[in-house]
Amino acid sequence: MTRYLIYSEGQFGTPASKTGNSVIRYSAEHVAAVLDSRLAGKTVGDVLGYGGDIPVVGSIEEGIARGADALLVGIAVHGGGFGPELRTAIHKSIGLGLDVWNGLHGFVGDDPELAALAAARGVTLHDLRRPPADLPVGTGLVRHLDATVVLAVGSDANIGKMTVMLQLRAALRDRGTRVAFAPTGQTGIFIDGWGICVDAVVADFIAGAAETLTIQAARDADIVLVEGQGSILHPGYSGVSLGLLHGSLPHALIACHQPTRKTFRHNAWLPVPPIADVIALHEAIAKPLRPARTIGVSLNTSEMSDRDARAEIARIAEETGLPTTDPVRFDITPLAEAVQAFDAERRGAAPATSPA
Amino acid sequence: MTRYLIYSEGQFGTPASKTGNSVIRYSAEHVAAVLDSRLAGKTVGDVLGYGGDIPVVGSIEEGIARGADALLVGIAVHGGGFGPELRTAIHKSIGLGLDVWNGLHGFVGDDPELAALAAARGVTLHDLRRPPADLPVGTGLVRHLDATVVLAVGSDANIGKMTVMLQLRAALRDRGTRVAFAPTGQTGIFIDGWGICVDAVVADFIAGAAETLTIQAARDADIVLVEGQGSILHPGYSGVSLGLLHGSLPHALIACHQPTRKTFRHNAWLPVPPIADVIALHEAIAKPLRPARTIGVSLNTSEMSDRDARAEIARIAEETGLPTTDPVRFDITPLAEAVQAFDAERRGAAPATSPA
Repeated sequence: MTRYLIYSEGQFGTPASKTGNSVIRYSAEHVAAVLDSRLAGKTVGDVLGYGGDIPVVGSIEEGIARGADALLVGIAVHGGGFGPELRTAIHKSIGLGLDVWNGLHGFVGDDPELAALAAARGVTLHDLRRPPADLPVGTGLVRHLDATVVLAVGSDANIGKMTVMLQLRAALRDRGTRVAFAPTGQTGIFIDGWGICVDAVVADFIAGAAETLTIQAARDADIVLVEGQGSILHPGYSGVSLGLLHGSLPHALIACHQPTRKTFRHNAWLPVPPIADVIALHEAIAKPLRPARTIGVSLNTSEMSDRDARAEIARIAEETGLPTTDPVRFDITPLAEAVQAFDAERRGAAPATSPA
Repeated sequence: MTRYLIYSEGQFGTPASKTGNSVIRYSAEHVAAVLDSRLAGKTVGDVLGYGGDIPVVGSIEEGIARGADALLVGIAVHGGGFGPELRTAIHKSIGLGLDVWNGLHGFVGDDPELAALAAARGVTLHDLRRPPADLPVGTGLVRHLDATVVLAVGSDANIGKMTVMLQLRAALRDRGTRVAFAPTGQTGIFIDGWGICVDAVVADFIAGAAETLTIQAARDADIVLVEGQGSILHPGYSGVSLGLLHGSLPHALIACHQPTRKTFRHNAWLPVPPIADVIALHEAIAKPLRPARTIGVSLNTSEMSDRDARAEIARIAEETGLPTTDPVRFDITPLAEAVQAFDAERRGAAPATSPA
């Protein structure tokens, strides 16, 4: 089992460490330590409020002493390349025998010096955003699967689509179903160790990548939870989101929404429409290929008071007629029950497996 | 002015020579000759029924003798690479001093031997599908333009979207408007000498590529005609089509349809919906970013009798309430008038320029 040293130098606990934070939240057993010399000596729990006793360390050597065998590069970097500080850390890590898992747009394997050093040291470089070489153009092959496919969609990017699917997977596993998660972005891939960054493939192959992933996830599962990306209304990312929808051909959708998000991410000119409109649009554009029914709403209420959050959940449940929750703040159960009930209805029978 | 030798060996006049045929139809003044040794001695007009006296030649040397200064690779090639015969022709062309314009997925510039020879001979290699290095993520910048933006959309791929925009450009030029065409695919780029293959960019940058192109086309134009790609309902290409819609933020749409096309290209499992449904979906998914009104329908009636074509045009005009024509078989005028009227209405004034 890979054990990561999460590189977060100068950024841990800030919004820029979001990727590393998600790996800690959903895959803590894979995290040996976090590297941020500003916070060395603290625990992850001290900084984030979750993550418990995972140590924050001040050097790569300390990370290795805590059991790390891989460096995880999950921070945000502006512009191309890695910047001198990060590149030095990658160089040193390879020299010390760590594998590298890199989610940035720049590829470690394309840096001749780092690649040569990795070859000499026998370590493996995982550039998560490098697409597979032989992706197909999508042709709707998912329609032949027996598995029930569920896709998280959203009124905007960065709104909780991966989170709800990971929570759902855990809950459905607890209930004894054969469930799989199909990672479509870097954080999901860090957490699950496989997947394709669908926003990093050549545009002609978005749906083909989604199709490939969904078919792979369905091999040993009755229910496939496909991680969503972006929004079909986001000015930058809508193409990725629609290709993912038409490639994964979900039977059911979980609609994700952040009530306090008034305008689209990085697009303050553009208001986020009401979630009911977003749901209707998704169902309309899915239908000609394969009808998809929205079966639940996942709210991100992180910027609301407890009272406001509960009121908003009730309001949206009323407005949409759908099970609604904030799966991080409250309870995933309504959505887990909705997926099981949908799966049972689709199969015209009792749920694939009964609650444990 | 570049004068192409169109490489079409063994394929001229077959469906596989579609790209070359379009260049001949819309840009004949750029075509010195077509290379297909099977048909050497004939004229393009003999083979295609249009293209007049452009000669078909049996060798690269003959093409040069007819005035060619560039080899245009516009045929379809199965699998990666160029195949031995085509690669030999490219090698010889470079050796004889021809530039190369290549629309295939494989890049001539990535072949070390061909690249070195091109450098030594001082010829330029144009790999049309290679994306620009510095594309932005789309952020709706087109909304700041003064120009009226018109996008061709369709009920399927390969249905006449480029064709109608090229016909429209010619007609609007004749009417004295300042009109530009924004090429989004290889054939459009061959014809116009600039553009971006939006299906060849990394998925995150589809809308950014469309935005960049539209802004560039608007520099010297009051009306920008954006070449469409695919369909927002095509199982393989819908992501590209939606990114193009949300990146170019059209004010108006021309809806393209082929009445005899019953199922989606390469997807015989999937029926093509009625054009009225396709129009409604496009307008619904455009609206939250910027409302787009469909102002005309362009039909491809190439597989219908004259009588059936006229009847279908009348039927669809009645069903949609929109000006409808087959711009290749009949007359572009109804669509040219629709664009001018829309532009005038949008500007709250008389048309930007009056008919000549």
